Amino acid sequence: MKVKIGGTVKDYRTVWMEGHLVRMIDQKALPSRFAIHTSRDHCETSIAISDMTVRGAPAIGATAAYAVCQAAFEFHGTEYEELMEYVEGAARLIKSMRPTAHDLFHAVDLIVGKIGATDSVEDARKTALVESASYADMSAEECRMIGKHGEKLIADGFSILTHCNAGALACVDYGTALSPVRTAHLNGKKILVYVDETRPRFQGSKLTAWELSQEDIPHYVIVDNAAGHYMSKGEIDMVIVGADRITRNGDVVNKIGTYEKAVVAKENGIPFFVAAPKSTFDQGTLDAREIVIEERSPDEVLKVGGVRVAPEDSLARNPGFDVTPARYVSGIITEKGIIK
Amino acid sequence: MKVKIGGTVKDYRTVWMEGHLVRMIDQKALPSRFAIHTSRDHCETSIAISDMTVRGAPAIGATAAYAVCQAAFEFHGTEYEELMEYVEGAARLIKSMRPTAHDLFHAVDLIVGKIGATDSVEDARKTALVESASYADMSAEECRMIGKHGEKLIADGFSILTHCNAGALACVDYGTALSPVRTAHLNGKKILVYVDETRPRFQGSKLTAWELSQEDIPHYVIVDNAAGHYMSKGEIDMVIVGADRITRNGDVVNKIGTYEKAVVAKENGIPFFVAAPKSTFDQGTLDAREIVIEERSPDEVLKVGGVRVAPEDSLARNPGFDVTPARYVSGIITEKGIIK
Repeated sequence: MKVKIGGTVKDYRTVWMEGHLVRMIDQKALPSRFAIHTSRDHCETSIAISDMTVRGAPAIGATAAYAVCQAAFEFHGTEYEELMEYVEGAARLIKSMRPTAHDLFHAVDLIVGKIGATDSVEDARKTALVESASYADMSAEECRMIGKHGEKLIADGFSILTHCNAGALACVDYGTALSPVRTAHLNGKKILVYVDETRPRFQGSKLTAWELSQEDIPHYVIVDNAAGHYMSKGEIDMVIVGADRITRNGDVVNKIGTYEKAVVAKENGIPFFVAAPKSTFDQGTLDAREIVIEERSPDEVLKVGGVRVAPEDSLARNPGFDVTPARYVSGIITEKGIIK
Repeated sequence: MKVKIGGTVKDYRTVWMEGHLVRMIDQKALPSRFAIHTSRDHCETSIAISDMTVRGAPAIGATAAYAVCQAAFEFHGTEYEELMEYVEGAARLIKSMRPTAHDLFHAVDLIVGKIGATDSVEDARKTALVESASYADMSAEECRMIGKHGEKLIADGFSILTHCNAGALACVDYGTALSPVRTAHLNGKKILVYVDETRPRFQGSKLTAWELSQEDIPHYVIVDNAAGHYMSKGEIDMVIVGADRITRNGDVVNKIGTYEKAVVAKENGIPFFVAAPKSTFDQGTLDAREIVIEERSPDEVLKVGGVRVAPEDSLARNPGFDVTPARYVSGIITEKGIIK
């Protein structure tokens, strides 16, 4: 992704490895400050996952892959079996940081499996380096391809609504929902993005708006309440969102509020697309009614910027995700093409 | 409305007159602090309307009526004609405080008209006192009747979603959308209220939750994004909201976000009721497509608690209201009964 620094524009990934350091864009500092966070070992990288310095399923996956690689290099002994024990211990720690993140488990298990298929400390380390880099590259490439396929859906002059941040920051690069938007802009199409601020954590105003402003893509931040208004006024041509999980029947689990946007889009005849790599498809779950929606801290609702906005004795409920049944989804944009 | 002060519960109106002072609950201080704001003359009362110490169409109407009354008493001369000139000047100032508030114009014109029908300074003042008090009493009584009629729609055990603050604080007392809720609670029905926080100004978490907590009515504050989730899970039995204006064909102009809730309610077969006194009906407008929706300051979106949540170069759009077409409304609860 492009980042404006001083008078120049530089290319960044959300997370990468330099030597044995894992470096990442500090997403907690955005949008007011662009800073690079450095983790020296798998423990520090785990903390960065846990405290949301890095967030977004694909970005967490790549970060976790790098963390396993760090563990292989941290190991001080010479015995391959001891290295595997150390790496497996590290893997358990890394996986415990975000208990519901599918990509996190997948990435850690994949890299540990590759290391487990070697038979020397040296080979294990070489494999860890190659495989974690390859995991991140593949993840970025999938997003690039989502952009290539999804861009065809965007006509010149389109206004596009998006919810939450399914941008480069949520991935290794390009983004899922924002990848077609980026590609359309690069191809010279004149587009306008309506960015839902996405309460309670403001990923829309803080992260999506930041990405768009770095690339000079015209956009308006709106409160989540205003999306329906603009849809009903005919000011939105399509909706693109990301997905945390897609079940076998096509139901989409995504950031809270996605369902409302999908229902109102359908009511107004506006195409509603989900952009996600195929790894988001959860073949083990038939439909999303089986999924228990995580309830997050009520403080995210009751306090804003540390200041309480509700009475002291008021309670809150704070579901992190909702389910958009497949019938509201016009199509799913994947790295292989568009599934209708 | 009930207000818990120390160990006791006291009854308050949102705004009232004591001698020539206009006193009101300071809505800018809620929910963290309960304070009474006092305005000594029509200028101070006008400022309280302008700076949103008092807000909500019916509450503004009553406050404005009292402000006209204050003007009649501030006048220092002895000539009736001069008093009328002074009162009319005051009326122009008061009406300019919130340029789109229908109730504000109506209340001011009504009281000025009544004063204009007298023929002495003494009579003018007596009339101003009687008529402004009567305006506020009538406004409160209308809301009480809305509660009486609307309560019949609420079954024991119902969970009710509301948006923004259409409570006692928005009126002189009781509220519009919250009046049936209060009455059901007083009648011993076990109810649970889901309170949309209502971005950008948080009238739900700041004001509606405060009113409910004062009366020990069980409630959860939720982000606006979560309302659809609970509707789709079958956890909401009905929706009640207020209205800023209702056009001749039944379209409802109300706080931004109302339209989304109405669409999602209909999609889930959940009754969606609007509570409003008959004075909210705008006979002069056929349908709401004719109405220009006020755009408010982008800073309400871009800054939260004074802190910017979006990049410096991001723009925002901030419509204050939206239009819910009549076909999404199950019925309108008025002081005369329920219009289906």
